[in-house]
Amino acid sequence: MIKIGIVGYGNLGRGVECAVSKSNDMELVGVFSRRNPETVKTHTNVPVYEMKKVYDMKDQIDVLVLCGGSANDLPKQTAELAEHFNVIDSFDTHAKIPEHFEDVNKASVNGKHISIISVGWDPGLFSLNRLYGQAILPNGNDYTFWGKGVSQGHSDAIRRIEGVKDARQYTIPVEVSLESVRNGENPDLTTRQKHTRECFVVAEEGADLERIENEIKTMPNYFSDYDTTVHFISEEELMRDHKGIPHGGIVFRTGTTGFDNENKHVMEYKLTLDSNPEFTSSVLVAFARAAYRLASEGQYGCKTIFDIAPAYLHPATGEELRKNLL
Amino acid sequence: MIKIGIVGYGNLGRGVECAVSKSNDMELVGVFSRRNPETVKTHTNVPVYEMKKVYDMKDQIDVLVLCGGSANDLPKQTAELAEHFNVIDSFDTHAKIPEHFEDVNKASVNGKHISIISVGWDPGLFSLNRLYGQAILPNGNDYTFWGKGVSQGHSDAIRRIEGVKDARQYTIPVEVSLESVRNGENPDLTTRQKHTRECFVVAEEGADLERIENEIKTMPNYFSDYDTTVHFISEEELMRDHKGIPHGGIVFRTGTTGFDNENKHVMEYKLTLDSNPEFTSSVLVAFARAAYRLASEGQYGCKTIFDIAPAYLHPATGEELRKNLL
Repeated sequence: MIKIGIVGYGNLGRGVECAVSKSNDMELVGVFSRRNPETVKTHTNVPVYEMKKVYDMKDQIDVLVLCGGSANDLPKQTAELAEHFNVIDSFDTHAKIPEHFEDVNKASVNGKHISIISVGWDPGLFSLNRLYGQAILPNGNDYTFWGKGVSQGHSDAIRRIEGVKDARQYTIPVEVSLESVRNGENPDLTTRQKHTRECFVVAEEGADLERIENEIKTMPNYFSDYDTTVHFISEEELMRDHKGIPHGGIVFRTGTTGFDNENKHVMEYKLTLDSNPEFTSSVLVAFARAAYRLASEGQYGCKTIFDIAPAYLHPATGEELRKNLL
Repeated sequence: MIKIGIVGYGNLGRGVECAVSKSNDMELVGVFSRRNPETVKTHTNVPVYEMKKVYDMKDQIDVLVLCGGSANDLPKQTAELAEHFNVIDSFDTHAKIPEHFEDVNKASVNGKHISIISVGWDPGLFSLNRLYGQAILPNGNDYTFWGKGVSQGHSDAIRRIEGVKDARQYTIPVEVSLESVRNGENPDLTTRQKHTRECFVVAEEGADLERIENEIKTMPNYFSDYDTTVHFISEEELMRDHKGIPHGGIVFRTGTTGFDNENKHVMEYKLTLDSNPEFTSSVLVAFARAAYRLASEGQYGCKTIFDIAPAYLHPATGEELRKNLL
């Protein structure tokens, strides 16, 4: 049994707890939290410890799955823990991945442990498909579309507007652009042509709805480059119809082969997810299995999803995989 | 530069020639054929040698890409060559992969070379997506659909019927079944519910068309379990409208997460290929790069697509991949 520890118990941590509880080759040792452990109740009654306790439990943990945020938690936490544990994180600030990799790699090499960073679906499975696509069709184009799904960052941006009580923002790919890509037309797409944004807003009583709508639609970076729709709804409607955290998207590689580039090919990878955090957790848990196996072989240092041979993720043996899945 | 040799010069061999000619880090050393080399003319004027000559050129070749057929060529050829060269093949008789792996692995270990077998899209990229899907969503279902595309085996079966001059058969996924899978309904699908078969047949002059159509539709294994449509067309129409070798298909993994399996997820991997052999060739060439790199590290033995870390396929460095694709 692979012994897993969870660091941080938000949506992602709960998702990891669930995924581990359903994996036959894993068991959950504990949840480590910066909150007072007595105030945290886990779904499976697995014990909760204060964060610093983790260092006393080194021998009981094979892999730590880090479920903190990329803005404030992971930049320090992953490297600190990587010196003492095999760790997995879902660090998703794309621009800072090279720096994060260097920090974590140094710690992992020092401690002779395995770390795998930026695991999830983007970065993660989407990145993989960009890589396979470029390697196989070097003469081609990449397209990534997100949605339909909830963007937490955009929802938060709306919530910061005066007079807004709550909000939910959906990112939606533009169907006609998807079709153009699928047809191998290799369109050059502007930001506006790729996605639309749909906002469901609960306003404070008596708030100026016209001003709120205008502030949303003209907000730089977040909304001004997009066609944005704003719906004002009641708090009850928001809770009833927009409680979930769905997401997903599509990675395309389109390209040509043949001496005159006469043959077109489209590779399409599409995810449709009811729960963004639970799916990300499921990816993390599969890569925790890989980390355990790599560490068992004596490997160490920082890896990304690009460095992990697929067979390490699946509980079956190489022989079974070749027989049943190849 | 990675020095590539091609064994066998049919559609697949020509596709490899084309893909290598467009790869900046590879060069083609020669084509090896069982035909009289003087009768074989390559597209890029790369020299053609008789098969046995390959053993004299060991030092000039980094990886041999084997482009023979799975029925008659590869079962012997791959193992024979794997003792002396790093080799890649696209062996696609699914049921015999375990046996082929054992044979080739023994030879590769003996010769301390790398071999990668069953490379292409199915087996190959489709297998990968089955593996990633099962590893990430252990509670779920697999679906593979093929087409729309030309099945050579089924086209050949029609050609063997008396009175048939030529034929082309398309395998087509049933749209309503695709939609059911996409909606996460986890349908149990019969053979008939997954694919239909569409046949374009050129009959000999005076042949009994009704008999031919009936023989096709009732042919066991090939057609009797499917809804089959037969169109009789002229030889000119066949050459004009059905000259290409398109193919493709979709691999789905659908599954649930959450303590009560309350959240559904759909992973969909779709290929739409104008030329089946040229796309397969492109996959072979990317894995030839991986074979070269693995061999340079001193690794040896037989691998499959499951054993190759994705980064080995792409010409960029790990640092570049993390910066630009992760």
